[in-house]
This record gives sequence, structure tokens and C-alpha cells, in this order.
Amino acid sequence: MLQFELLQTDGHARRGRLTLNHGVVETPVFMPVGTYGTVKGVLPSSLEEMGAQIILGNTFHLWLRPGIDVLNQFGGLHRFEGWNKPILTDSGGFQVWSLGEMRKISEEGVRFASPVNGDKLFLTPETSMQIQRALNSDIVMQFDECTPYETKGHLTTEREARVSMELSLRWAKRCLDEFNRNENPNALFGIVQGGMFEHLREESLNALVDLDLPGYAIGGVSVGEPKPEMQRIVAHTPHRLPANKPRYLMGVGTPEDLVEGVAAGVDMFDCVMPTRNARNAHLFTRFGDVRLRNSRFRTDERPVDETCTCHTCKHFSRAYLHHLERCGEMLAPMLASIHNLHYYVNLMREVREALDAGTFPQFVAQFKADRARGTT
Amino acid sequence: MLQFELLQTDGHARRGRLTLNHGVVETPVFMPVGTYGTVKGVLPSSLEEMGAQIILGNTFHLWLRPGIDVLNQFGGLHRFEGWNKPILTDSGGFQVWSLGEMRKISEEGVRFASPVNGDKLFLTPETSMQIQRALNSDIVMQFDECTPYETKGHLTTEREARVSMELSLRWAKRCLDEFNRNENPNALFGIVQGGMFEHLREESLNALVDLDLPGYAIGGVSVGEPKPEMQRIVAHTPHRLPANKPRYLMGVGTPEDLVEGVAAGVDMFDCVMPTRNARNAHLFTRFGDVRLRNSRFRTDERPVDETCTCHTCKHFSRAYLHHLERCGEMLAPMLASIHNLHYYVNLMREVREALDAGTFPQFVAQFKADRARGTT
Repeated sequence: MLQFELLQTDGHARRGRLTLNHGVVETPVFMPVGTYGTVKGVLPSSLEEMGAQIILGNTFHLWLRPGIDVLNQFGGLHRFEGWNKPILTDSGGFQVWSLGEMRKISEEGVRFASPVNGDKLFLTPETSMQIQRALNSDIVMQFDECTPYETKGHLTTEREARVSMELSLRWAKRCLDEFNRNENPNALFGIVQGGMFEHLREESLNALVDLDLPGYAIGGVSVGEPKPEMQRIVAHTPHRLPANKPRYLMGVGTPEDLVEGVAAGVDMFDCVMPTRNARNAHLFTRFGDVRLRNSRFRTDERPVDETCTCHTCKHFSRAYLHHLERCGEMLAPMLASIHNLHYYVNLMREVREALDAGTFPQFVAQFKADRARGTT
Repeated sequence: MLQFELLQTDGHARRGRLTLNHGVVETPVFMPVGTYGTVKGVLPSSLEEMGAQIILGNTFHLWLRPGIDVLNQFGGLHRFEGWNKPILTDSGGFQVWSLGEMRKISEEGVRFASPVNGDKLFLTPETSMQIQRALNSDIVMQFDECTPYETKGHLTTEREARVSMELSLRWAKRCLDEFNRNENPNALFGIVQGGMFEHLREESLNALVDLDLPGYAIGGVSVGEPKPEMQRIVAHTPHRLPANKPRYLMGVGTPEDLVEGVAAGVDMFDCVMPTRNARNAHLFTRFGDVRLRNSRFRTDERPVDETCTCHTCKHFSRAYLHHLERCGEMLAPMLASIHNLHYYVNLMREVREALDAGTFPQFVAQFKADRARGTT
């Protein structure tokens, strides 16, 4: 099931509510990424404590490990990983794309060798749907080909982007057929492709809208293109999608990217940046970013962000986090991941409150000024 | 301050209550080890949740990082690491001893090069007390020389063990003098040495008892000796210590060692085994040990231990833990550390309940039978 209620708008920005099989998600929302059935270094109870509403899983990874037999045995990913709220899974398309020269794409699907054990594998729109059914994901993503920014050393041409986009469209139809073969409590999202070409984005979008899917994503951004190129596509595409359906910008991005995305009409975001940067001692805060390894934090008794209410900022100082990082202690990435995810989740909560209060433009101005101010 | 109340005895086994500057500790007790100001991979809130009453810190490590200036600035280790309950710190003696050929022992103290940055350092009974004062440890350990089981390739001789034990005694007196130079809310423990020689253990013990310290530890066990040798010393020494003062067996050991230690009259234990083994996917349970990497757990929906009430066993299956371990996910050591520490902490809670109920011998018999049964 999927219901989407549009509660409030401000320009292209939207305040919504998404009802899924495992619960309600207030939008705009940031979704922490749990590739292998765990948001790296974070207990599910910590995710609940910080107010995470929905998390991601990766079809490709979970197919390889633990494997579909195990996930079937557990009745899906929720019970396996101890998370009872909604889950969205990507289709495996992006991961297969990341394999680069190690995979071979045909009309039928993608052949590749397992990076875990070398087994020859074949992923198709149909198998992607079957795996995501085993995962029992609340939101199932179509299997697509992620159009790269560069192809064989040159910028992807319009011709190449069109061929790729049209393949993703044919795969969208096969996904929908396979998805509908069984009764299904979950929802299938289509993915708009088209590379850096606005007219291809529109062709992709229109054809997907004809399939009347319950939600749509914008894929093929954050794939190596310069920031202005990404911004051009993010400004172009989201508001052209149906107003009564949720819109998901895949794999984006910095806090600034998220706020710009909301302003452009996006409802849902995911990104590994908060957890990956946390493991590199790079923390996001209201007043710019903090590099914990900087020796100026050695004696700094303040929390990472004095306005932050996360577990890390409530209990620990910059000096302590700097010390843990310096000693290579596991608690350093643990506490940094809690902080960064809380920052992202809370940023979207503040966005929702501003939209509710009709003060989104002021919020955006303040957000930009605060972030530019930098940390003292 | 230190008050020790002896509530119950059964043979040499004792049920007690220790009141320290930062709170009350029910004994027998297991103390998780937090070397660098963190119990590796475990949030302080998880330690509280599992019922940990007191944790360790390492004087040697904390002296090097973050350094005494930082700890002084925070008014001690408690606020720095976010733990408000009692803390015991070792004196650095054992760590300096572990440096092997890299250190030089004299009457005055130990000279060595910092393993962090090569700085030349000099640790003495006086500096150990000064560092532990900066840490504001509820229980301060005397600086001692840990007598090794083997010296230069041969079993440590009676002569060598005596020289070492007598040095530790002279250092105990210097520690007490330095400790008493300032008013102090904390308590200094002496450490009985004497190697594998019962008469030396008794000489050490008697001389330390003459100093009328508030508590005593047994050191120099778990230093490479065969298990029966350790058992011989653990059976010999604890009950010879003053009945009205707490007794701490340093660095021991397996669950079986702890239960034997209690039966021999020990009140307090610490060991890195639960956390270190957790990081190697080795879990302790009521019914023997579980090696999570074993592929038979791939589809095992049961918790690690069905009788266990820890966060890990309440929320996650063996199959999930096996999967996390196989994928090298940080959550694997995190969940395993929570389980193992809970097992140790809870084992001592069960011991206390048995002593309260007057059923300690039955408890020991059941404990041994259960552990020997093995996991299904």
C-alpha cells in the first residue's frame, strides 16, 4: 500500500505524509542507508531514538549476502535486521552499474561475477522484483540502468543517454508486470533517467507517468557530474512529476543539496554521506562542518554543535571525540554516525516545521547563513 | 571514601556492598575494561542498560592520550568519558611491564619510550598517584611491578620473584605517602605479588595488610602461566586477605575462572576477554561458547542465548549476527560486545542472588553443568 497526502506547499516545496505497509512517513524525509541490512555502526534503537522514519536496504548486496533463502526464512528484511518501520530498497541497478567493466548489459538484464565469491550472476528486472519481494520492502525500486556522466572517456552523448533511458523504460514495464504477478502490500517506484539532457528527462518522466506508478524517483544524478550539472537537473525535473505522488531524489547529497532539493519539489532523499563522512571524522553541523581530527579540538569541552539534541552532543565533548578518533577507538565512528544521521534527519524535521508554519523561505535563508558562518 | 559491608558468606565466597565516591557497587562484581576512556565499541548508555556498576580505565594509556592536562580540565575521567558511576584505574604497572625490553626498571621507577610518539617517559609510584588523582578514580591502584611467569626464557625463580615483590612493597609505601599528601575522596588498593610462590604471596600480603589499605588486589596472575598454576594461587591467596576489605583479582578471566574466584573469596574482577573475544566473533553463553563465524548459524533464527536478556539477544538472531560478521559490518562487534559484557555482568548478578539465597553451591553445580552442555 501507499497513500500520499499533500499537506502544504510553498513554491515547488512540499510538505506531505506517506502511508506505507510498515507505517507513516512525514515528508520531506531523509532515509539513512543500510546497505547490508545495517546502517553502518548504528543500532536500530539509536535510529529510532533520533527519529529516523524509513531506512534503505540494497537489493544487490542482500541478494549476495545473506541470500534470498535466509531473507525468505525471516519473512523479509524487517525482522532480519530488527527494524519495524518502513524500508525502501534500491533495485540493484546502481550497484551493478558501479561494477564497471566487470558487468555486461543486454536487453534481458545484466551478467556479472559476484564480487564476494566470483559466482556468475544474472540480474534482470524480474529477478530484482523477486528479490525485493523476498525483502518485503515497503518501497520497491524498478530495475534500471543508471546512465553515467561519462562513457568510455567522453561525456555521455545524447544518443547514448537516449539508448540507456529507453532500456530503463522497457525494464520499468517488465518490473511492473512482474511486481503485479503477485498480490503485494508494497509500492513500486519508477526511476526517471535521461542523463544531463532535459528533453530526455521529460520523455522518461512522461512514459513512466503513463504507467501510473505510486511514486517516482530521479536517478542518474550524483554519478560524477559537476555540481552545477546536478543542480540543473534537480531544478528541472522534480516539479514536472505528478503532484499527488511522492518524489525521491536518489543518492543526494550534502545538507545544502537536500534543502535545494526540497525547494525544487523533492520529498525523499537518501545518501551514504552522513555515515561515510562520520567514519572519516567529518561531522555536519548547523554552523558548517567539523573535522574532528583537527588538534584545536583537543581541549574543547563543547559538544560538536551546541544547538544539537543528538545522543552524542548531549553526552560528549569535542575533546572526547577527538581523543577517541586519535586512538582509533570504535566509539569514534559510532558517535559520529549518530550525530551526522541525527543532523540529516533533524534537518528534514526543521524543513517540515518551516513548511507547516509557512516560513520555508526564511528557513532557507537562515540555514544558508548558519552553514556559511562556520564553526567557532 | 570506601565502605565495605560484608552481607553474606558461604565458605570463602562473599556477598558484599562497596560504597565509593561515585556510588554503590554490589559484589561480587565484574568490571568492564575501558582502556582509553571507552569500553571498546560500547556506548556508556548500553553499559548502564546492562547493569554495569563500575568500569576500569588505564592510567598508562590515558596519561599518553588524551594527557593529564585534558583530564584535569574535565575534572577527571567521569565527565570526559560520560560515565557517572564508579571508576577503578590500574596504576600503569602492568602496561609498563608489557613493554618488555622497551623499558628499564630501577628503584625510582620505570623509564620507557612512549609507544605513541617515542617521547622518553618516566613513571614512578608518585607520578602514577598524581595521574590517578587527575583521573579522579574512585579506586586507585598502587604502582607495582608485575612479576612475570617467565624471566629471560626460564621460569621466574624464587629469588627473582622475591626481589620483584619487595620492590612492589616499597612502591606501595611510596604510593600511600603520595596518595595521602592531598585530601582525597578516593581509595587506594594494594596489590599482592609474589609470583607462583605461596610463601612470597603471604609475605607480600602481610606487609600490605600492615599498611591498612582500604582494599587489596591479587596481581601477577594471568601473565602467561598454565591454568593450574593460576588456580593454585587463586585458591591460596584471597581468603587470607582481611575479611572486612574488598578483594580484587586482576585481569581474570573466563566465566569459569570468575565463579572459581568467587568461591575462593574474590569480590571484584576485570578482564578484556568479553570485549576482545566479541571482536573475534566469540560469544559466551550460559550453555557454552558460540563462534559466530560457523556457517551452521547462517539460517539460525534463535538468539545467541535463549535465556539471555541482553539487547542483542532481545532483538537479533544468530543468523543476523553471522551475516554481519561475514560482511565485516561494525555492528557485529558492537552487538557481540554488548552480549558478552552482559553475560559477565549478569553472571555476577546471578552469583549475588545465589549467595543472598544461600544456594551458592547449587548455583556452581548448575553453572558448570550448563556451560559443559554446549550450545545446540
